[in-house]
Amino acid sequence: MTRPWTATVLTIFPEMFPGPLGHSLAGKALQRDLWRLETVNIRDFTSDRHQTVDDTPFGGGAGMVMRPDIVAKAVDHAVQEGAPGPLVYLSPRGVPLRQAMAQDLAKGPGVVLLCGRYEGVDHRVIEARGFLEVSIGDFVLSGGELAAMALIDACVRLLPGVIGDEASLKEESFASGLLEYPHYTRPQVWEGRAVPEILLSGHHAKIDAWRREQALSITKSRRPDLIGTSG
Amino acid sequence: MTRPWTATVLTIFPEMFPGPLGHSLAGKALQRDLWRLETVNIRDFTSDRHQTVDDTPFGGGAGMVMRPDIVAKAVDHAVQEGAPGPLVYLSPRGVPLRQAMAQDLAKGPGVVLLCGRYEGVDHRVIEARGFLEVSIGDFVLSGGELAAMALIDACVRLLPGVIGDEASLKEESFASGLLEYPHYTRPQVWEGRAVPEILLSGHHAKIDAWRREQALSITKSRRPDLIGTSG
Repeated sequence: MTRPWTATVLTIFPEMFPGPLGHSLAGKALQRDLWRLETVNIRDFTSDRHQTVDDTPFGGGAGMVMRPDIVAKAVDHAVQEGAPGPLVYLSPRGVPLRQAMAQDLAKGPGVVLLCGRYEGVDHRVIEARGFLEVSIGDFVLSGGELAAMALIDACVRLLPGVIGDEASLKEESFASGLLEYPHYTRPQVWEGRAVPEILLSGHHAKIDAWRREQALSITKSRRPDLIGTSG
Repeated sequence: MTRPWTATVLTIFPEMFPGPLGHSLAGKALQRDLWRLETVNIRDFTSDRHQTVDDTPFGGGAGMVMRPDIVAKAVDHAVQEGAPGPLVYLSPRGVPLRQAMAQDLAKGPGVVLLCGRYEGVDHRVIEARGFLEVSIGDFVLSGGELAAMALIDACVRLLPGVIGDEASLKEESFASGLLEYPHYTRPQVWEGRAVPEILLSGHHAKIDAWRREQALSITKSRRPDLIGTSG
């Protein structure tokens, strides 16, 4: 018996989980034990009556910082209990999450995700435990939990058996390094707008060529950074 | 009486909301009516017994596409009911969400968010209703709902009164165009790792300079794309 892919989430808001991940594709896969979700409440590793996880930053400044000793106890506990996979700290300072990283993580046994709150986590525990810092985008969230959920969802849908028709994984955005071509379905004419004629032609090679051209065109226009040169 | 900032979410999974947005910072602000959340169930705008929102793609290929007529009815209903703000379609094809966009959206009356499922939404309704396509990152989710939640959270925390100490908004990642400097809190020495001495010096100008240098250094190393030149 192999253990299914497991996401272990270290958070002070375990009640947020599974949340959206308990519905739809990820939720059905969770029920079918195609993946597992464990949460570790960082507050369980405090020793004061108020279960304080944070303190003021050295050097001054606004906000609070999560203590390295408390966070380390939570991480060490999870690892000792056998939580599989690399340690990832969700932070806007991190390397950007890309589809290739989701694919790599989905191939492994799981992932351990540390969710920061307040100003973030003391940098020493990130270094000492060898966390990979990962960012889901160039914006700031109120905590790492939504970023963790996005990372988990991106991985779970790639696990074997989760998506019924795995062919759809081959055609989507980034699978080819490009943004995806536009989609059309019924009605064939809607509000005077007709579906592009080529899609009704039945010429599969021409349809493939058109879609490729559309994907290239939208990528050049919106995301030239995805195409080696920006021309 | 001004209406608070309002996020209107068009989805086939309204039960996912508020989900994580009902907790912590965003959740407390929701209870205090500092922002509002409305969901529109796209399935309410179908006319068949099975409440079908999708159909097969023209031109062939895997997966299903959300119909333009059904989605348009849901959008038009929300707009007629007074849902404020620009129309945004969450899609990996979109322009990347950045902190500046969250700031702009937070300054407005709200946002209307369309969450796709399956292969996505028929392109004609995106064009016809003038949706701005926005992506939270270069990875594929099982639907737009988690992306919508991330966008909402990024905006809500910027609304007046949501974060107690608004000074912390000025120092965070991207506020200066750079990733944020590292944070440290007690204990001063942890597992033999001491807090950088400069932070204990009390010299505010030197601390600011050190932090700026740290922010620049981490940005150069991890995200040279954020600094005009990649040197």
